[in-house]
Amino acid sequence: MTELAKRMKTAEPSIVRELYKVWTLPGMHSLGAGNPSLKTFPVKEMEEISKQIYEECSRDHSMVDAIFSYGVTEGDDPLRKELKKRYMEYYKNGNPKTDDLQIFTGAQQVIDLTAKCFLNSGDVVLTEEHSYSGAISAFWGYEGKVVGVKTDEEGMLPDALEEMLQKEEHVKLIYLIPTFQNPMGIVTTLDRRQAIYDLAVKYDVMILEDSPYFELRYSGEYVPSIKSLDKTGHVIFAGSLSKVLTPGVRLGFAIANKNVLAKLTVGKQCQDMNNPGYNQRIAARYIENYDLSAHIQDCCTLYRSKRDTMMNALEKELTGKATWTHPEGGFFVWLTLPSHISGDEFTRYLIDKKKLITVCGSAYRPDGSDVNAIRLNFSVPSEEEIQFCVHLIREALEEWVDKA
Amino acid sequence: MTELAKRMKTAEPSIVRELYKVWTLPGMHSLGAGNPSLKTFPVKEMEEISKQIYEECSRDHSMVDAIFSYGVTEGDDPLRKELKKRYMEYYKNGNPKTDDLQIFTGAQQVIDLTAKCFLNSGDVVLTEEHSYSGAISAFWGYEGKVVGVKTDEEGMLPDALEEMLQKEEHVKLIYLIPTFQNPMGIVTTLDRRQAIYDLAVKYDVMILEDSPYFELRYSGEYVPSIKSLDKTGHVIFAGSLSKVLTPGVRLGFAIANKNVLAKLTVGKQCQDMNNPGYNQRIAARYIENYDLSAHIQDCCTLYRSKRDTMMNALEKELTGKATWTHPEGGFFVWLTLPSHISGDEFTRYLIDKKKLITVCGSAYRPDGSDVNAIRLNFSVPSEEEIQFCVHLIREALEEWVDKA
Repeated sequence: MTELAKRMKTAEPSIVRELYKVWTLPGMHSLGAGNPSLKTFPVKEMEEISKQIYEECSRDHSMVDAIFSYGVTEGDDPLRKELKKRYMEYYKNGNPKTDDLQIFTGAQQVIDLTAKCFLNSGDVVLTEEHSYSGAISAFWGYEGKVVGVKTDEEGMLPDALEEMLQKEEHVKLIYLIPTFQNPMGIVTTLDRRQAIYDLAVKYDVMILEDSPYFELRYSGEYVPSIKSLDKTGHVIFAGSLSKVLTPGVRLGFAIANKNVLAKLTVGKQCQDMNNPGYNQRIAARYIENYDLSAHIQDCCTLYRSKRDTMMNALEKELTGKATWTHPEGGFFVWLTLPSHISGDEFTRYLIDKKKLITVCGSAYRPDGSDVNAIRLNFSVPSEEEIQFCVHLIREALEEWVDKA
Repeated sequence: MTELAKRMKTAEPSIVRELYKVWTLPGMHSLGAGNPSLKTFPVKEMEEISKQIYEECSRDHSMVDAIFSYGVTEGDDPLRKELKKRYMEYYKNGNPKTDDLQIFTGAQQVIDLTAKCFLNSGDVVLTEEHSYSGAISAFWGYEGKVVGVKTDEEGMLPDALEEMLQKEEHVKLIYLIPTFQNPMGIVTTLDRRQAIYDLAVKYDVMILEDSPYFELRYSGEYVPSIKSLDKTGHVIFAGSLSKVLTPGVRLGFAIANKNVLAKLTVGKQCQDMNNPGYNQRIAARYIENYDLSAHIQDCCTLYRSKRDTMMNALEKELTGKATWTHPEGGFFVWLTLPSHISGDEFTRYLIDKKKLITVCGSAYRPDGSDVNAIRLNFSVPSEEEIQFCVHLIREALEEWVDKA
C-alpha cells in the first residue's frame, strides 16, 4: 500500500463503535450502549410526515427538489428556522447579530470540522479528564495533542485548566460536554462554566461545547450553557437531534459566530456537501407539527425510571465495593472500581465470563491509559436487564477479589 | 477569532456550490448545474418503498433499529450486498478476495477521506488539467498541492503524467474522473487507463477513480474502469447513487483494498459515524425490487436527447466562434472560447447582461488561473432552454467581439 499520511498510520477504529459488532452476538447482555432507546423514537409521527411529504412531491416540483436533489450546505431553511427558535431564542444560545445556526451530520461532524478549522499538527485540545472517545479520535485525526484536565463531580477544575493553558504550548481548543457528560454523567456547575469561559477568553482559546444530552434531565435544575455566557464568539455549541428524535436522521447543528460557521461550511462542502433533504424535512415538520418538548418529557419519564433503577441496583449490589456518579440526566454512570483493578481487564472479564458488555474507562482517556473505571449505560437496557447486569458486575467483582 | 489552522486560513466556499444561491433568483437562466434532472428521480417508487418500510417498523423492532438508530460505519448490509453485485461482480471492479465495498456520504466523502488517509502537508495530487472543484478543495483541505496534468480529448497524457511523477516530490495520489469527466465531458481511452495505472504501480502512487457518471452513456462504447485493471490495490473506485438514483439520498461508495477501507472507515467514524438508515434501506430496496438498469436507460434516453440538442445548438450558433467537446455521456460540455477571452470575465458578463449562469473554467483549475473556457451543463435545462441559452452565449460572444 502507498504510504499513509502520518495522521492515519496509527489510527484504529474506536472501541465503542467496534462494540456494535460484538453485542449483536446471541446471549450477550449490555450496559455498553451510547444510544437512545428505540422506544423513544416517534416512528408513527414520522410515518405520517413522510406520507405528507411524498404526497406533496406528487404535486409540487419544489418539494421534489428540496427532498431529492442537492441542497445548500448550510442546511434546509425550515429545519434551521425551527432549530433557531428552540436552541437560539428559547435556550438563549448565541447572539442573533453575530451568531447563526447551521445543520451538520450529527454533532460528530461539528467536532471533526472544528478540529479541521483550528488544529495545526501538534496543537493542543484540553478535555475533561475522561471524554467522548469519538471526539478524541477526531482530534487525533488532525494530529491534535489531546490532554485531559483534572475533573471532579462539578466539572473540569478551572485551576487545573489554567495550569494547563500556561504549561502547554499552542492550546487551541477546550472540548467540553458540560451537561450529563459522556462518560461520567456529571454536570459542570454554572460557576465552573463561567470560570472556564473566562479562561478561554483570557488565553484566546476556542471552546467546543458538545451538548447532545442537555434536554434529557431527570432531576435537579437546568444549568445554562457555556454558549449562553459567550460575549466574544469563543464558543461553538454543538447540538444534536440524535438523542431527542432519532440518531438515524444523522442531524446535528452548530451555533457559532458567523465567521466560524463560514469556515465549518467550507469543510462540510468537502466532506458531504449537505445533509439529505428528506431527513432534514422530516425533522423540521416534526418540530413544526408536533410538540418536541412534550416528546422529550416522555423520553425523560422513561429514562428517569431506568436511571433510578440503576442507582438502586448499584446501591443494593455494590455499596462498599465500588463508587459511582449520580447522573441527573443523560445516559451514563461512571463506575469506579477498587484502585487495584484494571478497567481493561475487568471489561474483558465481564465479556468473557459474564457475557456482559460495558466500556472500559481507558476508551475515554486522551492518553488511552488503563484506569480502574468503566462506563455503564442505562438508556437502552430494560429495568430488569439493568438489575441483572449490575448483579453480574457484583459477581464479577467478588470473583475478582477471590481470584486476587 | 482564535487563530485558524493553516489549512483553513485561505479556504473559501466553492464557486460551484455558491452558485446554488444565485440561480434561484427570478429570471435567471442556467447552464451552470452539476446535478441530475429532477424528472429522473423515481419518487413514486421511493414512496412505495417508504410505505413498506414504515409498515414493517410497526411490527418489527429490528427494522426500527435499522432505520432509526445508529448503524455500522461500513454501511447497511442490504445496500452493500446490492451494490457489490452491481459494481463489483457485474462491472468487475475490485478483487473479491482483497477488496470490498463500503458506503460513504456521496463520492465526495470518499474523496475527502482518501485525501485524509494519504496526504501529508505538501504532498502532491495530480489531476486532469481541469478537474472537479469539490475534489480540488478537498485536497487543499489537507494541505495537498494539486497539480493539473496535460489532458486532451482522450484523457490525461501518460507522458505528461510520468514527467510530473518524476519532477514533483511526494506525489501520493492521481485523481481522475476517467468517464464523462467533470468539467470536460471526455472519456479516457482504455490504452490511457492502462498506461496511467502502470505508472501508478511503477511510482507506487494511489489512483482515486471518481466515477459518478459512468452509467450515463448516450453513445459510443463502454470502457472498463481503471479499477477493473487493478491487480495491486493501487486504485480506489468512488461511485455514487447521486446521478442514477437521487443526490438527496447522499449515498456513495468506495471499492478498494480492505486495508485502505479500514483506514477510510476510521475517518468516517470521526466525520459522521454512519449514513442514515432510512436512506440506505430505501436505496437497497429500490435496487432489490425495481430495475435500476432499466431506470438508468430511461435517464439516458432523456439526457441523450438533451445532449443532442446542445450539440446541434452549439453547431448552429457557435461554429467558427468557439470549440467544444462532444460528450458520449454525463452532464457536461467544455466550451473553449477564442484565446483572448477571459473565462472569468465572460462568465460574469453572461450573468450580468444575459442572466445566464455558466461556470468559469478557472473553477476547475488546480491553480485557479483564468482560462478561455466555460463549463456548460445539459442535464437540467429543458431542450428549449438549452437552445435559448446557447443563443445567449452567441449574443454575448458577438457583443464581446464588437466591444473589443
